[in-house]
Amino acid sequence: MPEAATATHIARATIGDSEFDRDTALTRRAPGVFDIDLSAGWTIINAVNGGYLLAVLGRALAETLPHADPFTISAHYLTASQPGPAVVRTEVVRTGRTLSTGQASLFQYDDEGREVERIRVLASYGDLDSLPDDVRTTAVPPAFPPIDECFGPQDGPAPISGSSAITDRLMIKLDPATLGWAVGAPSGKGEMRAWFGLADGRDADPLSLLLAVDALPPTAFEIGLKGWVPTVELTVHVRSRPAPGPLRISITTRNLAGGFLEEDAEVWDTENRLVAQSRQLARARLG
Amino acid sequence: MPEAATATHIARATIGDSEFDRDTALTRRAPGVFDIDLSAGWTIINAVNGGYLLAVLGRALAETLPHADPFTISAHYLTASQPGPAVVRTEVVRTGRTLSTGQASLFQYDDEGREVERIRVLASYGDLDSLPDDVRTTAVPPAFPPIDECFGPQDGPAPISGSSAITDRLMIKLDPATLGWAVGAPSGKGEMRAWFGLADGRDADPLSLLLAVDALPPTAFEIGLKGWVPTVELTVHVRSRPAPGPLRISITTRNLAGGFLEEDAEVWDTENRLVAQSRQLARARLG
Repeated sequence: MPEAATATHIARATIGDSEFDRDTALTRRAPGVFDIDLSAGWTIINAVNGGYLLAVLGRALAETLPHADPFTISAHYLTASQPGPAVVRTEVVRTGRTLSTGQASLFQYDDEGREVERIRVLASYGDLDSLPDDVRTTAVPPAFPPIDECFGPQDGPAPISGSSAITDRLMIKLDPATLGWAVGAPSGKGEMRAWFGLADGRDADPLSLLLAVDALPPTAFEIGLKGWVPTVELTVHVRSRPAPGPLRISITTRNLAGGFLEEDAEVWDTENRLVAQSRQLARARLG
Repeated sequence: MPEAATATHIARATIGDSEFDRDTALTRRAPGVFDIDLSAGWTIINAVNGGYLLAVLGRALAETLPHADPFTISAHYLTASQPGPAVVRTEVVRTGRTLSTGQASLFQYDDEGREVERIRVLASYGDLDSLPDDVRTTAVPPAFPPIDECFGPQDGPAPISGSSAITDRLMIKLDPATLGWAVGAPSGKGEMRAWFGLADGRDADPLSLLLAVDALPPTAFEIGLKGWVPTVELTVHVRSRPAPGPLRISITTRNLAGGFLEEDAEVWDTENRLVAQSRQLARARLG
């Protein structure tokens, strides 16, 4: 029946039952020790995406702390992660009534089987649903074209390299105004904007926001730089539980200097709420 | 002689020989263990200022790591610090050629003499003087009135409470456009701007920038809130060694929601370079 066929076709993954949930699932080996096999499905070229890794660490902390939602999480990236086995070790730093603080590290193994630390994270968790509704924000969402006027890797001359497995797992539709780099004409402005979702239709939650803030092409591309822009440190504030539907992500770089740049991301949900803010410091190799 | 008298009058403290340097000095008890007596000179009302504490931790890490300059430092504030004895414990997380990462915690003592953790910090350090000169920044300094058209606590109706010892150690001259709160007429905009220096004339360096980003009155005052705005997390990127002379600091809050707000600070030096960027997540009690 056509109707049933259509329903199957548009079946959407849900929070808790999706690629993202399966690939961030941890096996608890002991209190504060988790095993995970880092999926090759979230790689950019050959490196595992830093936002996916942050979501893995964020999930380990959610399972360690008495609060479930990352309010503010700071990650320092030490060495590049590869797909394959990893261990996450967590520590409860302090528990409080409204906020708890924890620490987590992700390790992989060198050729002799010794642990090598990849990332270390400090985070404070709370309960987003317990927050009062009062809002005195002055922030307004940036102007975005409608999603069907934006472009993803499936829409022609691939703006994101086809060798990056992560592109199959994400719905990224870039604002044409920030797409010049893909056709050899970067705007010179450090801006990148996109509609964002998970390709299997899973809606966003606080953990997937940790992925979202580091999933767009680097703003450096629009400044005219090429090549990898490795993250040194990434801090994310999750401010609200996102409403269902695609997110709008706007990333801005104002200060490229001395071989480093910052990327400031803001994430807006379908109810026009600023659900996350992040800033990262990254290295840039000037051409 | 009038000339000599004038020279004495304007004698300025120097980097390494100033109130700030003396009050952040640590005594090394063992490798990675430092004692310090937190000065009562950097308190706001009764709490020790979070920026001063970050500078103490930043200095401990500079003495622990092979690199001296904080490039990015993230602090999670756990419990309120009081003037008096404290111990700082540092750990080398990773050392590299251009960047080293470390962790530090500051502890004080409860009534039974047990250690209580106040702050935990993760940071990546490098050598600011080794960075290339290339700058492709698009950031421009915010508009500031001349310093003699700005106002500090010494300039009449005290905009900063006289009970805060820290005001004696800082040169803060607030842009009148962000001073409405001090006369009962907050602008409603989450902005705070000031010329900033140390009162004894010591010029800024990377460590004092850690103090600078958390030293102005809270932007919440201009939004119409009163009372304490305790920091949950503060991350600072130091991007350049500041030139001599007063700094210009601009702090912006865009999103006050759910009982929390962010404070984004940028710090400009006399050569119009963006020498530091910071963001903190703080709690706000809505009136």
